[in-house]
Amino acid sequence: MEYETIQLAHGSGGRLSAELVSRLFLPRFGNETLNRLEDQAVVDFSQGRLALTTDSFVVDPLFFPGGDIGDLAINGTVNDVCMSGATPLYLAAAFIIEEGLPLSILHRVLLSMENAVKGAGVQIVTGDTKVVNRGCCDKLFITTTGVGRVPEGVNISAAKLEAGDKVILSGTIADHGMAILTSREGLSFASRVQSDTAPLNGLVAEMLRVSPLIHAMRDPTRGGLATTLNEFAASSRVGIMLEEAAVPVRPEVRGACEVLGIDPMYVANEGKLVAVVPAQVADKIVAAMRSHPLGREAVIIGEVVADKQGLVVMRTTLGAQRIVDMPVGEQLPRIC
Amino acid sequence: MEYETIQLAHGSGGRLSAELVSRLFLPRFGNETLNRLEDQAVVDFSQGRLALTTDSFVVDPLFFPGGDIGDLAINGTVNDVCMSGATPLYLAAAFIIEEGLPLSILHRVLLSMENAVKGAGVQIVTGDTKVVNRGCCDKLFITTTGVGRVPEGVNISAAKLEAGDKVILSGTIADHGMAILTSREGLSFASRVQSDTAPLNGLVAEMLRVSPLIHAMRDPTRGGLATTLNEFAASSRVGIMLEEAAVPVRPEVRGACEVLGIDPMYVANEGKLVAVVPAQVADKIVAAMRSHPLGREAVIIGEVVADKQGLVVMRTTLGAQRIVDMPVGEQLPRIC
Repeated sequence: MEYETIQLAHGSGGRLSAELVSRLFLPRFGNETLNRLEDQAVVDFSQGRLALTTDSFVVDPLFFPGGDIGDLAINGTVNDVCMSGATPLYLAAAFIIEEGLPLSILHRVLLSMENAVKGAGVQIVTGDTKVVNRGCCDKLFITTTGVGRVPEGVNISAAKLEAGDKVILSGTIADHGMAILTSREGLSFASRVQSDTAPLNGLVAEMLRVSPLIHAMRDPTRGGLATTLNEFAASSRVGIMLEEAAVPVRPEVRGACEVLGIDPMYVANEGKLVAVVPAQVADKIVAAMRSHPLGREAVIIGEVVADKQGLVVMRTTLGAQRIVDMPVGEQLPRIC
Repeated sequence: MEYETIQLAHGSGGRLSAELVSRLFLPRFGNETLNRLEDQAVVDFSQGRLALTTDSFVVDPLFFPGGDIGDLAINGTVNDVCMSGATPLYLAAAFIIEEGLPLSILHRVLLSMENAVKGAGVQIVTGDTKVVNRGCCDKLFITTTGVGRVPEGVNISAAKLEAGDKVILSGTIADHGMAILTSREGLSFASRVQSDTAPLNGLVAEMLRVSPLIHAMRDPTRGGLATTLNEFAASSRVGIMLEEAAVPVRPEVRGACEVLGIDPMYVANEGKLVAVVPAQVADKIVAAMRSHPLGREAVIIGEVVADKQGLVVMRTTLGAQRIVDMPVGEQLPRIC
């Protein structure tokens, strides 16, 4: 490359833009579709239903224990696609880059995206790069959009919870958010806290293989498990009763939450899912999840109830009940 | 709304995020799919090929003569989809918003997006909002992703140019870029220069109706007509010979270009297309374009030649020939 930092001309659509794409992007993500370098990707798509999702990633810092903005941007969008039960197939990636960003940083992020793309078994088929003047964005933002195919017979929606359904969590909560926060605050005692960023499409495929009867499913990112379950309860006009003792939290994460006065129920996850399923298939689905590396700690954490409409209620380890409300303020900006 | 400016909590995924979506976004863009507020949209998609495109819009200023970041973000992505010959159907929109942005500004942008969505006959089916701290982005960035269906028998690609093909331009060049630049520079003599932002899917449908035999088609945005034609020539390993006198430029735009020492061939357009078609259908396609409001000034500006491989050459009004090269530097950052 001619320069060692990003120049405004790298976003001009001219020769330096072309060099950025051919030297940095294509060696990582090249495939028959992307290599055509058209302004849009044209891909085969068989009959049926298409799942579409988009997310902007603005995480600060760019690199954190357990991951970086690159794998987060891939895994986050893969996860949003597969939470509908869809098989993620194609991704689009749009970069907003601050002038002066060292190319070595961009390169490291792209390597990480490359690994994540391979890990999830998807393809980036189109993209965009914009460069803004120094001070007009903070280093690097990545917006990824995902397209997937929804299998026949699968109809997953936050509005489909029914009384008696079981609530399944795939593993420990609050890892990602606490990894960002403790790395930002430089808390050395919390150095073992790692982000859980991971692609969940393999786990979802296992779950659907044993039963397509999943009612609702979501990855509890911003706002954490509390927010996702509140959205489920509101959409389906039911109550959700949780057992606090059943919700797994790693000791080091619980410790960091206690020191900082943060409730792990509201902290972002990036490699976990919560599913609401009919009681009769719950154990079978949990067993299937536990056979997958990303679901080894899968557990039933509660159930759907007909009363307490719109509320999420937690039975605490002391036997009391407390309402787990929607968060009002921002706990952790730029967590993803 | 509880606040008059954007708070970090508007990006938290909590109650204020929900309010932002329900009070500002859904009233503008609501449809059966978006209203479900899932993390991904699931839409019908019939058998065939899917066109996918993504673009981040970082234009500065947000509002400019003839448009704003809102209609630009819709029209730009609609245009990238339809340049493949596809019918644009679904859009995803991701917002990165600076803390403290007046809600009135966001509201104005959303109204403009609403009009653009209706004008193009598409739907926004999913989206995302992130809020970053003051100073971490410049007011508002919007990334839009578009999905369309490619009709059978249509195969448009920059690699399909053949010697003898005609190059058709849909109208005047350099309007958008010069509108941004003159408004940024506060050049009062250029106050009549207006952006050409417009959705081109209707025009493309007209063109395909008379002939599906379009070889290549693109909207010459960043880098202008010169860059697009250079990409065509390189992809297809042919030469392109242009007639300078045939390329339409509005007098006020030409005047502004001359004062600022800018070549209109390199200036961005946001409502124009260039198509390369077999000679035998060229006149029929031009006639069809002229019957559409966005193609009234459509004109043949040149042809594809077998020699001069990879080069774009212009016969000037004085009879000389000059090479129209790819731009190297950034002429106008944040033009879109």
